[in-house]
Amino acid sequence: MSGTTGRGADVGLDLDLDLEEAGAVLAAEAARFASFGWMRGTSGNLSVVVSRDPVRLAVTASGRDKGELTPSDVVLTDDQGAAIGAGRPSAEAALHARVVRLTGAGAVAHVHTVASVALGRRRPEGIAFRDLEMLKGLGHPTHEVAVTLPVIGNSQDMGVLGDRLEAALSPGMPAVVVAGHGLYVWGADPREARHRVEVVEWLLELELAGG
Amino acid sequence: MSGTTGRGADVGLDLDLDLEEAGAVLAAEAARFASFGWMRGTSGNLSVVVSRDPVRLAVTASGRDKGELTPSDVVLTDDQGAAIGAGRPSAEAALHARVVRLTGAGAVAHVHTVASVALGRRRPEGIAFRDLEMLKGLGHPTHEVAVTLPVIGNSQDMGVLGDRLEAALSPGMPAVVVAGHGLYVWGADPREARHRVEVVEWLLELELAGG
Amino acid sequence: MSGTTGRGADVGLDLDLDLEEAGAVLAAEAARFASFGWMRGTSGNLSVVVSRDPVRLAVTASGRDKGELTPSDVVLTDDQGAAIGAGRPSAEAALHARVVRLTGAGAVAHVHTVASVALGRRRPEGIAFRDLEMLKGLGHPTHEVAVTLPVIGNSQDMGVLGDRLEAALSPGMPAVVVAGHGLYVWGADPREARHRVEVVEWLLELELAGG
Amino acid sequence: MSGTTGRGADVGLDLDLDLEEAGAVLAAEAARFASFGWMRGTSGNLSVVVSRDPVRLAVTASGRDKGELTPSDVVLTDDQGAAIGAGRPSAEAALHARVVRLTGAGAVAHVHTVASVALGRRRPEGIAFRDLEMLKGLGHPTHEVAVTLPVIGNSQDMGVLGDRLEAALSPGMPAVVVAGHGLYVWGADPREARHRVEVVEWLLELELAGG
Repeated sequence: MSGTTGRGADVGLDLDLDLEEAGAVLAAEAARFASFGWMRGTSGNLSVVVSRDPVRLAVTASGRDKGELTPSDVVLTDDQGAAIGAGRPSAEAALHARVVRLTGAGAVAHVHTVASVALGRRRPEGIAFRDLEMLKGLGHPTHEVAVTLPVIGNSQDMGVLGDRLEAALSPGMPAVVVAGHGLYVWGADPREARHRVEVVEWLLELELAGG
Repeated sequence: MSGTTGRGADVGLDLDLDLEEAGAVLAAEAARFASFGWMRGTSGNLSVVVSRDPVRLAVTASGRDKGELTPSDVVLTDDQGAAIGAGRPSAEAALHARVVRLTGAGAVAHVHTVASVALGRRRPEGIAFRDLEMLKGLGHPTHEVAVTLPVIGNSQDMGVLGDRLEAALSPGMPAVVVAGHGLYVWGADPREARHRVEVVEWLLELELAGG
Repeated sequence: MSGTTGRGADVGLDLDLDLEEAGAVLAAEAARFASFGWMRGTSGNLSVVVSRDPVRLAVTASGRDKGELTPSDVVLTDDQGAAIGAGRPSAEAALHARVVRLTGAGAVAHVHTVASVALGRRRPEGIAFRDLEMLKGLGHPTHEVAVTLPVIGNSQDMGVLGDRLEAALSPGMPAVVVAGHGLYVWGADPREARHRVEVVEWLLELELAGG
Repeated sequence: MSGTTGRGADVGLDLDLDLEEAGAVLAAEAARFASFGWMRGTSGNLSVVVSRDPVRLAVTASGRDKGELTPSDVVLTDDQGAAIGAGRPSAEAALHARVVRLTGAGAVAHVHTVASVALGRRRPEGIAFRDLEMLKGLGHPTHEVAVTLPVIGNSQDMGVLGDRLEAALSPGMPAVVVAGHGLYVWGADPREARHRVEVVEWLLELELAGG
């Protein structure tokens, strides 16, 4: 639905996806991830592209319990992750926006899973996966592939973190682990991003299980 | 209920189980398995025999979130797993059909559990279980038995995979692990298949726990 | 509520607890345990004393999914665990009845947890716990105690299994592990039995975690 | 809402937070923690400050299932944790009150998690964390910090336990592990306390996972 009558209209934007609708979708996705224990405390954040020209994102508001978001707990940002209109996005909105610019993704999910941080510490050079059917869930036509989940160093400077992410992007792997921090995953829309988060986390849990 | 007034009728079939009813049963079973984390992403698929003469299966549609299936997210296939009428089944429908032909099962469940893939890697020659009460859940009259859960190599060719499954079938074990992939389990009906999935997964989790 | 108008009345018994009410309580307890993964397949069974003079038990019916019991999925047994009236109890009803006779318990819970079987294999001589606050949940006035959870060999003969349980009973530990099988726990009523199951399982999970 | 018409009024107190409202909040928080398996049996207890001058706490009643509390399952205590009016608080109410006096916290959560007891045993000198983004969930402005979660010896004497807690308080860490017992965490209000419990437990689970 066009945003001409929604919150997008308040800031003079004609959005492809109304901001309230985007907020409802992100709240449902966040509640799902939270139920898995992947957004403990108020950690993590989700975003969806609500306009392509110009690029605009809806990003979950900072500091909220991710199992209790409402459709209005969302902030509109520009293509740099800076807020447009009311609300304060997570500082990490800038990294979401960078992922969108770099990859053309329509949705980005950032979660704090124990498995991603545990394996990021063991494999700072990246986490390799091969010969696993689950890799088809990332778009590969067969299990007979070898891919690497990049691990990048953490930073509070989103420009630095974005440069590291850009330098580390790995073909056939729509995800990056930030060491000591968590997991970024992206897809065409929030549902594809969700499925890819689940696939990457499954791969990490397999590694943790010694598989 | 006969399928003469359901979707089976659309393709000129008189099914023992109406396709919509079959879809409702499979959706409920899939949601249950998904809640355990055994169908992450869009992985896995379930089937039920809806006609014995000729053999016809209802198989979950491909590419859907297994926690969100509806009764219509199901495809009718012949005894080779080829679609009859509308919809696209998973390629793995051919393996479901092969299991039905080989074993006479009335329902087949294929799930992607971390434990099955982790142990399939450690025990490529098969996973042995003995002296466990839980084996009675697979139909054994006592715990004093020794059985092996076969592990077969993965393939994208369902004919190859089916041949491996046929060669590996193990007495007293209605299940097979596909290495790097997941678990196939079967039973007389979806409920028995469910219980056997739970039993086999419990056995695998026990092994993972070093038990 | 007296059972004079309930199913107990059908067999000429004046029960302290109506059989349907007992079934409702056990169904709720079973659904709770099943949600934790402690009654996979159709494993485990629960009982509650519905009459003391003579001793009569309500025991969950055999072969049902423990997450889907209804108030009528319960069987009345005598003090040996033999059915009175309709229905077939688990063969293990005889062990429930023996626990009641030996300990005076009002409720018995038998669950199949991975932790109990894993640790029963590692510690066939019994599993020792000491200096743990959680032991107060078994009735100890302080954490400064040392108790042992007995491990007994499995058998399909309930007389043999009962003799082993009787010989193994450990002061201050209302529970026994049956090797390769699962956990028996008892208490004054279903709620106390539930809390003790949770405490014992917590202790076992702590041991599994290397704590 | 003022407590002038609530249960606080019954004991002549004008509370900042009505006791029934406090009970409803604590019941919801307890049900949440119980669903994670952090309050097995009837373990753990929660409190919230309902008056600052004089200091008064609402503390969950002792001996109840923490997944089934009602708004009235709460006891009013003074600044030493002694009951005012009806009801019996946990003996540990005295430790909750001590934490409030020492730290100015508005809410205290005490949970029994397997991870806290397992790691308290391995690291009796305290559990160190550094370079983890999740530490920002405890109020740190960056991940580039090193903090220690203190571990103190258990005691049934709340004065002794309180002295140990006071001596162990660690800057930037609103939590303490009691060895062989569980975790105390505090915050400005029940929601902040909840988020900090989740963050600390996440850190402990990471350590358990070898991360």
